[in-house]
Amino acid sequence: MFPMETLPSERATVHRYAHRAAYDRPTIDSILDEAFVCHVGLQTDQGFPVVIPLAYGRRGDVVYLHGSAASRLFRGARADGVEICMTVTLVDGLVVARSTYNTDINYRSVVLIGSASEVKDLDEKRLGLDRLVEHIIPGRTADARRPTEKELRSTMLLALPIVDATAKVRTGWPADDDEDYELEVWAGVVPVRTVYDGPQPDPRLPPGPVVPAYASPYRRPAMSGR
Amino acid sequence: MFPMETLPSERATVHRYAHRAAYDRPTIDSILDEAFVCHVGLQTDQGFPVVIPLAYGRRGDVVYLHGSAASRLFRGARADGVEICMTVTLVDGLVVARSTYNTDINYRSVVLIGSASEVKDLDEKRLGLDRLVEHIIPGRTADARRPTEKELRSTMLLALPIVDATAKVRTGWPADDDEDYELEVWAGVVPVRTVYDGPQPDPRLPPGPVVPAYASPYRRPAMSGR
Repeated sequence: MFPMETLPSERATVHRYAHRAAYDRPTIDSILDEAFVCHVGLQTDQGFPVVIPLAYGRRGDVVYLHGSAASRLFRGARADGVEICMTVTLVDGLVVARSTYNTDINYRSVVLIGSASEVKDLDEKRLGLDRLVEHIIPGRTADARRPTEKELRSTMLLALPIVDATAKVRTGWPADDDEDYELEVWAGVVPVRTVYDGPQPDPRLPPGPVVPAYASPYRRPAMSGR
Repeated sequence: MFPMETLPSERATVHRYAHRAAYDRPTIDSILDEAFVCHVGLQTDQGFPVVIPLAYGRRGDVVYLHGSAASRLFRGARADGVEICMTVTLVDGLVVARSTYNTDINYRSVVLIGSASEVKDLDEKRLGLDRLVEHIIPGRTADARRPTEKELRSTMLLALPIVDATAKVRTGWPADDDEDYELEVWAGVVPVRTVYDGPQPDPRLPPGPVVPAYASPYRRPAMSGR
């Protein structure tokens, strides 16, 4: 069914609610491309993991993560052989079931486990940072000032290969117990969406620059990772 | 400045961009109450952490996390002395800076580290599950069928105390380099919001039940954790 490289490894296999799991790359990529903030977990030697939100960008089979060269997470995550977990979640709806027990959330998520490597080559770093900015604001790199060599050197970029990735998706109506359908109580779904309002110009902007098309109206692209 | 219980411990102290850190409970609680999905990280003995999205609810100084008694995460997280990291992130805007290097995201996040304990007492479990449902859909527990004892027993509820918690907040305009303000390029903020659309009735709903006020229009309460 699946090409070899998308076969889930044991650790990335969904054990609970396995019918909600999807291992195909188009599903995984569409979730990664619609969101732009992920939560990255890193083990520590103090008995607890650290989970922090990070912006990311996808380019083909790689996710680029951007952080400060001095940050605790990035110092740990770039170490050889260290594996991190990157999770992306899109919330699509509140599932208002007839019983509180079956109350649920419609969502799409991706869990990606792997070794991140530090991108040291300046050309790849430039490309990765561009991808990150384009992932958040498609079209922006054509206008904004590009990074200087000094900026590139003070930035840490991690590349995480998309190998051990699993998507989990819940859609649709409440899954109530048979007898609960007799109850006289409203049930359904409240759809949840992320919206982008009209761009607010920086007060320090001189008269002149017009709002570029990619900011007004801003729309999340359905697919941005190339 | 801070009451003792809100003094950040070393591990919950923000090292990077410390000016963005807020340790006060009202800030932490307002973020926890506005969101309803968190990302929980758990260490494994296989060299990588697992980070999964979970619904949660706050009640005073405790966050309740709900999962299946059989799930990998919950089996690991309830073990004595095991510490987990729970992170909540709200995205407020895309910060369109004059340079790609200063491109940023306005957000509010909370990182909470601690030992979660399994709630075994059925009365507290009932209370915690109610809080979880009320956190997601305020008002719902008055209408929906409440959990049976069997349902309560098959559910695992973890209680995570709010002790080691840190909020991190970025607001406002791009922080561009001085010389970049001369550039003839648009800059500003694209506000990001979560919206809730009109409720969709379950197709199996018989004629009769009207859409309750808490679902139409559905609004996230500013503060729900009591």
